Amino acid sequence: MHKKRIITLLSDFGIKDPYVAEMKAVILSICQEATIVDISHDIKKFDIRMGAFILAQASPYFPEGTVHVAVVDPGVGTERRPIIIETKRGFYVGPDNGLLIPAARNDGIRCIYEIANPKYQLKTITKTFHGRDIFSPAAAYLASGISPSDFGPEVHDPITPSFAETVVNGEKIRGEVVQIDDFGNVITNIGLKDLNKARIKEGMPIIMRLKSEELRLNFCSTYGDAPKHAPLVLIGSSGLLEIAVNQGNAAKSFKIKIGDEVILKSS
Amino acid sequence: MHKKRIITLLSDFGIKDPYVAEMKAVILSICQEATIVDISHDIKKFDIRMGAFILAQASPYFPEGTVHVAVVDPGVGTERRPIIIETKRGFYVGPDNGLLIPAARNDGIRCIYEIANPKYQLKTITKTFHGRDIFSPAAAYLASGISPSDFGPEVHDPITPSFAETVVNGEKIRGEVVQIDDFGNVITNIGLKDLNKARIKEGMPIIMRLKSEELRLNFCSTYGDAPKHAPLVLIGSSGLLEIAVNQGNAAKSFKIKIGDEVILKSS
Amino acid sequence: MHKKRIITLLSDFGIKDPYVAEMKAVILSICQEATIVDISHDIKKFDIRMGAFILAQASPYFPEGTVHVAVVDPGVGTERRPIIIETKRGFYVGPDNGLLIPAARNDGIRCIYEIANPKYQLKTITKTFHGRDIFSPAAAYLASGISPSDFGPEVHDPITPSFAETVVNGEKIRGEVVQIDDFGNVITNIGLKDLNKARIKEGMPIIMRLKSEELRLNFCSTYGDAPKHAPLVLIGSSGLLEIAVNQGNAAKSFKIKIGDEVILKSS
Repeated sequence: MHKKRIITLLSDFGIKDPYVAEMKAVILSICQEATIVDISHDIKKFDIRMGAFILAQASPYFPEGTVHVAVVDPGVGTERRPIIIETKRGFYVGPDNGLLIPAARNDGIRCIYEIANPKYQLKTITKTFHGRDIFSPAAAYLASGISPSDFGPEVHDPITPSFAETVVNGEKIRGEVVQIDDFGNVITNIGLKDLNKARIKEGMPIIMRLKSEELRLNFCSTYGDAPKHAPLVLIGSSGLLEIAVNQGNAAKSFKIKIGDEVILKSS
Repeated sequence: MHKKRIITLLSDFGIKDPYVAEMKAVILSICQEATIVDISHDIKKFDIRMGAFILAQASPYFPEGTVHVAVVDPGVGTERRPIIIETKRGFYVGPDNGLLIPAARNDGIRCIYEIANPKYQLKTITKTFHGRDIFSPAAAYLASGISPSDFGPEVHDPITPSFAETVVNGEKIRGEVVQIDDFGNVITNIGLKDLNKARIKEGMPIIMRLKSEELRLNFCSTYGDAPKHAPLVLIGSSGLLEIAVNQGNAAKSFKIKIGDEVILKSS
Repeated sequence: MHKKRIITLLSDFGIKDPYVAEMKAVILSICQEATIVDISHDIKKFDIRMGAFILAQASPYFPEGTVHVAVVDPGVGTERRPIIIETKRGFYVGPDNGLLIPAARNDGIRCIYEIANPKYQLKTITKTFHGRDIFSPAAAYLASGISPSDFGPEVHDPITPSFAETVVNGEKIRGEVVQIDDFGNVITNIGLKDLNKARIKEGMPIIMRLKSEELRLNFCSTYGDAPKHAPLVLIGSSGLLEIAVNQGNAAKSFKIKIGDEVILKSS
């Protein structure tokens, strides 16, 4: 049996307008066997970093050969290139603005191509909706078996994002809030490697400085380990340190936003 | 032809984050023929009752053999068991916290199993996202034909929810608001059986006490039977008594919330 | 191989409640090979015009043979007829209230039928949810190959909407805001034909009167042609004139709402 090809979509388009449906319509017109899965269309408008983060979180769970289309594209219709990244696990299609890089790096990047061949685009290319006119057809043709090298020349200088890195200084870790989920869980860029280096582990009481406030928190293993409505930290499902409130909303309780600095040390 | 297996998803995860997509990715990695249908991901956070209500409303319309995954799970990672309920019409997969019971009871419960066999789970089980690590794989393996008894031991003492019951006293019915839909229609737990017992029927003027207010309303058969912007009651599409405003929002007009008491009698 | 049939759904139901899932469940119970695509469920409640606009924008991108179900239906359960429109490209299923007409006219209308045959409806028809009980089964039976003429008698007097038309007077165009998208882009009913008649084209500075304000704007070809946060006009991806703010929200900046008058002339 022909293996089903999965195409995922991520964008900042929202789901009220016809834009996402137009992308799906174009994909199904070219590749009727495609199984389309929405990753998220509620990326903050023009927030390439949030888009890159969500894409990199979700993509490892998809089967090999999946084609990921991601469109957070403030430069649509300007000089920025449309690209395909071929990785060891699948394909990423979208604008050359850094959005695709973190997810593609997780997989292992094989090669990057510009989408230039008009044969694999809609006949009319608008200057404002490359998601429909360029990226969706490219994804559908990739899913149909067209080789990525048929789309255009190799790209050797992709735009790479410069997202904040953590700093571990003795037993102190300095990181940053990278995402706030729909539960209000505050996801930082602090991972297991940082925690190991600073010798902080589950079960310890810790001190977390958030903006000007200093919080004494328990490093739990799940939300329910803290009393109802009590704050805690834990390693979330994405392998990153989270600040949470059991059955509550940590981001609201502590007035935290994306980009806020986080300093962590053992208590 | 192999009959297509449908897997439905219900959660309080929202659709902004990568969580729902990660569940779909896991399902499609195990069972590529699955057709996945979202029931709702906008259940109020941790509101097991609302989740149970929405699941029980939607599930009877799905074909036999459908596998329903539902995750409203404040106790994730604690002692609560992950379970599969086999019914006369299909399967329910989720936490043992009452969420699955009303829908499963509608179908007729055959047997309940704990999900314990690591063979049918992801290799790494986080303590915070059993929707992805335990429930989605279980659903995908069920859809692939694995017998529910292969997942673990039988469960004889599931947690059963104690949702409010209606009381009919002569021609008076005491009930409760169980749901407010996106139109602001106020859905109560009062059904046809209660109305028959109290001898209240369509076409009658009725008196409804809502909190401290007493409303005289017509018992209509559809929204458009009342003048535009006028209030009414009717039997909604789920077979339950609803308070509505024709082309308006009853919940806002009368400041009603879930859990409010409703007393109904003929006028 | 049997060609896959696509069924699209558009409604004002939102996605919190079980209504959309119940429609999909009914469709998949009748036609298990259907591929279901959501166009939008966030149409403003009872706003037939917005629904008609979104449907007409999206439908041309779907393959021939697609069945579109659209439900914005303030008159559900009253005398208004349920209809099927057969066009040169596919089928439209929904209430006879004007919602389907603009999209069907784009395709070219072949014939309109009332849905009257109870054989192709659910056994119990509620008076409040024809989306589930009448329109979804009709779509699924159409997708399964039932001829539209089997559903009921021909309809010769469909309700047709009277949406605002543009007026071109010399070099001045009078139009109206027909949609505000999730980015805050303000979409007017002014198209290329109007612009050609008034001899206004891309690259020109123009004067736009919006309510009592007069704006001098550049007629750009894409958002990024204006400085960040600067306003502009352009031809959007749907072929209509849009007022936008580069990486901003034009509707909020200029306090524009749907229905506002727009007067355009060259500067």
